[in-house]
Amino acid sequence: MEPNNTLITDTPEEGRALAVKLSRLIIKATQPDEAARNRMRDIYANDPAMLISIGQVVATEFSTIAAANNY
Amino acid sequence: MEPNNTLITDTPEEGRALAVKLSRLIIKATQPDEAARNRMRDIYANDPAMLISIGQVVATEFSTIAAANNY
Amino acid sequence: MEPNNTLITDTPEEGRALAVKLSRLIIKATQPDEAARNRMRDIYANDPAMLISIGQVVATEFSTIAAANNY
Amino acid sequence: MEPNNTLITDTPEEGRALAVKLSRLIIKATQPDEAARNRMRDIYANDPAMLISIGQVVATEFSTIAAANNY
Amino acid sequence: MEPNNTLITDTPEEGRALAVKLSRLIIKATQPDEAARNRMRDIYANDPAMLISIGQVVATEFSTIAAANNY
Amino acid sequence: MEPNNTLITDTPEEGRALAVKLSRLIIKATQPDEAARNRMRDIYANDPAMLISIGQVVATEFSTIAAANNY
Repeated sequence: MEPNNTLITDTPEEGRALAVKLSRLIIKATQPDEAARNRMRDIYANDPAMLISIGQVVATEFSTIAAANNY
Repeated sequence: MEPNNTLITDTPEEGRALAVKLSRLIIKATQPDEAARNRMRDIYANDPAMLISIGQVVATEFSTIAAANNY
Repeated sequence: MEPNNTLITDTPEEGRALAVKLSRLIIKATQPDEAARNRMRDIYANDPAMLISIGQVVATEFSTIAAANNY
Repeated sequence: MEPNNTLITDTPEEGRALAVKLSRLIIKATQPDEAARNRMRDIYANDPAMLISIGQVVATEFSTIAAANNY
Repeated sequence: MEPNNTLITDTPEEGRALAVKLSRLIIKATQPDEAARNRMRDIYANDPAMLISIGQVVATEFSTIAAANNY
Repeated sequence: MEPNNTLITDTPEEGRALAVKLSRLIIKATQPDEAARNRMRDIYANDPAMLISIGQVVATEFSTIAAANNY
């Protein structure tokens, strides 16, 4: 997670970045092979339905971070 | 995010606009190539299932914004 | 959004109607062409999976409205 | 919605029933033709993925009802 | 629902079990035929996408139960 | 669940680990056959849409854990 292991960020902008990071870490934990992840990146980056789903995951992570920070 | 890096908006209407903006920024971060995004726009704007999914993402972002603003 | 730009409604029933309206406005913003939206309406109104997804979006919008109104 | 237009129920059990009812009313509003809804019922009642999605909608509606009732 | 019609459980573990139970009861209400449900069980228990979706429903039900219990 | 049957963790990092664990336990409860689960693991670990959905489930479980811990 964060270097300092916390959900607290200085700004909402950094909170968004943390939400993206948390989303990616779950994928990394489920598929640890970097080459496999890179192959899939080309797929989801050009698939509108998957891009929308990624937006959904980040929105969910961000709602948790926003609540923790009382933005 | 916002010019002033905040989730606080003057009205619910502006909160909706911010929710749409946040949703788009995630897609932009995942697919930085503007031409690729434009190609996909034609697809999802004419696909009812994807349009519904976009509504889901915006609804989730908006719930976070609404909580931050005590609408 | 609402004529008076607010999430506050007199009754839960009106809150449901607002949730439906918010869901539709996002689709309208993403696909501004009315003819295109009408063509898609015939599709999703007869597709059970899409109807269920619409229910999901409205449920999410309504949870935000319900929280704002302390129903 | 309810005869008395409220999210408040006497028991969690009745709250579950209300969540199911709210989910159905959205589908009814989107597809007002009863014959069309009945045809789709045979489809989603025998499709495990759709049944799971229905469970998701009801779970979301119920979370709103549970919050309103302080169960 | 529960024998005693409540969301309150003694432990988070029992709360998880209740979340699973609530998820199943919705499917049972939508498809009351036990033979049909058993046929579908073989399908979703061997379909990774459906198993993930089941996890999503249970997670949503559990969030409601956790809030009710102040875990 | 946890050895000590609680949602409380020392750090957000451990909360993330618990969210992953809860997600897996639901799949295990629905498909108890370990060989079947291992076969499916190869599928979802190489399917970008499923990996994104797993991220969604973990994000939802984590939001519950974060609320319980007041991160």
